[in-house]
Amino acid sequence: MDNNKKSMETIVNLCKGRGFVYPGSEIYGGLANTWDYGPLGSQMKMNLKAEWWKFFVQKRPDMVGLDSAIFMNPKVWEASGHVANFSDPLVDCKSCKSRHRADHIIEAQADIDVEGKTTQEIDEIIASKGVKCPKCGEKNFTPVRKFNLLFETLLGVIEGDKSSIYLRGETAQGIFVNFKNILQSSRKKLPFGVCQIGKAFRNEITPGNFTFRTLEFEQAEIEYFFNPAKQDWEKLFDELLGSMKEFLTTRLGLKDENLRELEHAKEKLSHYSKKTVDFEFNYPFGFKELTGCAYRTDFDLATHSKASGQDLTYYEQEANEHVAPHVIEPSFGVDRMILATIVDAYDEEGEGEEKRTVLRFNKYMAPYQVAVLPLSKKDELSVVAQPIFNTLLDSFRVDYDETQSIGKRYRRQDEIGTLYCITVDFDSINDHMVTVRERDSMKQERVPIAELVSYLGKLLA
Amino acid sequence: MDNNKKSMETIVNLCKGRGFVYPGSEIYGGLANTWDYGPLGSQMKMNLKAEWWKFFVQKRPDMVGLDSAIFMNPKVWEASGHVANFSDPLVDCKSCKSRHRADHIIEAQADIDVEGKTTQEIDEIIASKGVKCPKCGEKNFTPVRKFNLLFETLLGVIEGDKSSIYLRGETAQGIFVNFKNILQSSRKKLPFGVCQIGKAFRNEITPGNFTFRTLEFEQAEIEYFFNPAKQDWEKLFDELLGSMKEFLTTRLGLKDENLRELEHAKEKLSHYSKKTVDFEFNYPFGFKELTGCAYRTDFDLATHSKASGQDLTYYEQEANEHVAPHVIEPSFGVDRMILATIVDAYDEEGEGEEKRTVLRFNKYMAPYQVAVLPLSKKDELSVVAQPIFNTLLDSFRVDYDETQSIGKRYRRQDEIGTLYCITVDFDSINDHMVTVRERDSMKQERVPIAELVSYLGKLLA
Repeated sequence: MDNNKKSMETIVNLCKGRGFVYPGSEIYGGLANTWDYGPLGSQMKMNLKAEWWKFFVQKRPDMVGLDSAIFMNPKVWEASGHVANFSDPLVDCKSCKSRHRADHIIEAQADIDVEGKTTQEIDEIIASKGVKCPKCGEKNFTPVRKFNLLFETLLGVIEGDKSSIYLRGETAQGIFVNFKNILQSSRKKLPFGVCQIGKAFRNEITPGNFTFRTLEFEQAEIEYFFNPAKQDWEKLFDELLGSMKEFLTTRLGLKDENLRELEHAKEKLSHYSKKTVDFEFNYPFGFKELTGCAYRTDFDLATHSKASGQDLTYYEQEANEHVAPHVIEPSFGVDRMILATIVDAYDEEGEGEEKRTVLRFNKYMAPYQVAVLPLSKKDELSVVAQPIFNTLLDSFRVDYDETQSIGKRYRRQDEIGTLYCITVDFDSINDHMVTVRERDSMKQERVPIAELVSYLGKLLA
Repeated sequence: MDNNKKSMETIVNLCKGRGFVYPGSEIYGGLANTWDYGPLGSQMKMNLKAEWWKFFVQKRPDMVGLDSAIFMNPKVWEASGHVANFSDPLVDCKSCKSRHRADHIIEAQADIDVEGKTTQEIDEIIASKGVKCPKCGEKNFTPVRKFNLLFETLLGVIEGDKSSIYLRGETAQGIFVNFKNILQSSRKKLPFGVCQIGKAFRNEITPGNFTFRTLEFEQAEIEYFFNPAKQDWEKLFDELLGSMKEFLTTRLGLKDENLRELEHAKEKLSHYSKKTVDFEFNYPFGFKELTGCAYRTDFDLATHSKASGQDLTYYEQEANEHVAPHVIEPSFGVDRMILATIVDAYDEEGEGEEKRTVLRFNKYMAPYQVAVLPLSKKDELSVVAQPIFNTLLDSFRVDYDETQSIGKRYRRQDEIGTLYCITVDFDSINDHMVTVRERDSMKQERVPIAELVSYLGKLLA
């Protein structure tokens, strides 16, 4: 099914109804753009993070992991430039009092990208292009002001010692700040990457789009350090981009046709950046960012070295020299990857009574890989089905469901993406066999109970 | 080795030196009580969370998972009582201007527990028992004041709409607030539990003790809901407590002798709570809390139902009645579990030259289960060792190390808790066998390369 024909409303409803994602704090009227992952969504998140970690950290000898704190010394954010520059350009409509992202309304109405432009330049574009308030239609804006995206909070209970700190705006800074400790303790040689998964926070005006853009979100970031005199950055960049694509297509199972590579124009890049390539995903609201890969030169380590007074160079033994490592940064949004996986997997088949909704998750991402479904709630079926369930639990993610008609239960399992349904019926009592139904083809096969683990093992290995 | 003989300083140094845990923001002079998990520590945290999730969520048909947002509607914390009561009693020393937790200095100097007492009552105890300032020794305190532990931050960029929100003080409230959505989407029948792992934040004065008490920390909490008319709470409580102990001893590998069950005295319990039992662990600084299990009656759901106006009851079909579920809460601190696992596993053996430090991690918690160590960096050994490494990576967590003498590398792997070392030597080239060394016994066995996966598989399954 074409992603453009999928409706966000249908997907949001499915997510809530089946327990993937609920609106945050819903019983209290919610809280702007917060979302809670339910039983199935939290399992998917566990799956995704475990697979990402295996793929990039455990299986690669050139990568190690990190889990740094959300609270960091404020000097980190001053040095990184976030305190001064991590901001959105906002305008107020003087007529209807609504507030907007200037860059967003200009892009939507005049198709101009204002990244890197000053507030004065943005004011001029708004005036010259006749940009209107999207809410009331008037052209009556205040001058553009920049609003910093970092959340602040007060740390400490001792009056004189209370200090304002920030919630981290990205996980990457935790990697740079720990570069020296990682180098010393892990004894890694360049090139090597440091990977981290964790929450980040940005106080921004967001159009929502479900979990696509939220104030609190989870990142999975890699800083890949190398010596530009010894390693070819373009080759490394391509290798990392290739790994990212492999992860997205094989582990999340995203279809090639729903991914698009977008290289940022040179003039839009920060002064220190040489190249940035995003993977955009075909969401129902259009192609938008899913992941990004940026070559950031030695900007980050050099900046932190200068601000902290610490030596953050790398010692090349053979050449007997200290080098400033450069870095390539593959960056993933965990919540966006979950959303993309659900959207990509979503499918509808048939018409009317025969219509079914299927989430075509692969074995890595499916909340449940297998469901055990005794045909009825009768005890004589339970005594056969329960031991099967218990045995399968050792090897797979398994659901057990004995309520409602078997047809309804198949539909439910299709809707939550379970790959195989094991039906225990009255014949099973005597012939010690069960029916295995495959989700996509709906083909059914009779399999001896004794062979079930190895049968499914081959399919789900 | 007796835990009381282990030195925290040695453990903190090992953690930093080997890449388990670094001081947070260290290059900027640190930030009070924040810690960053390095390559080995972050891997342990991944291991621990994956095992906890498997143990309590995936393998139990009566439990489901949740991953709710850190940002919640402030009404949640008003309803739960955190805004009014989640506070520490603090006093200032008027002589030396230092600030202290009144409950801590009273407990240390007078062995009195002030939990539940009013500020006036605490003032009287300080005066009558002659409690002194631990810093300067004077008895010159201000009256006790309560300081709320919730961190606040401002959400939103629109002036009139800016609202103060809290960083969650515990993950549990996310479960209560989602009870209705979980019930409707998962169709679970009572009794069932909801499990969540995530960060929580408390702005408190802390004596530190490494990662034992930090302002930002990770919790793993379960709310187990049941119908008190149908299920016996004492039986459920014991069953959950038994599961907790099983997790601590079998998955983290904590020794029985280092765990102590402590039931809170009835008079110390909150008015709504019927029973609380902690598992205390024998840290080098004494037996202190590791996990807790509390029977909280229907307090939480009833409170949120009242404050939100939502029906949070459960419909018992057979009896055709709505019941208010009661709840038992097993609660774990992830950072404390990591610390306890490292302390418990820490061991020293031998004397002088023969002395070695070993972290006796089990297969679940060890950052690396296996290390592949070619005897030297020569190419003819790499061509044998590299394919072994690549093959093992599919099934195990594997390190590869070819620097330094083999003796030093064994010591290093012992110090980071790797269970098996595979040595590739010059005989391996011809006889296609390698030496497998077991960490604890240091016994070595010659194993054919072709059988290595199944050999290790049996040991690490």
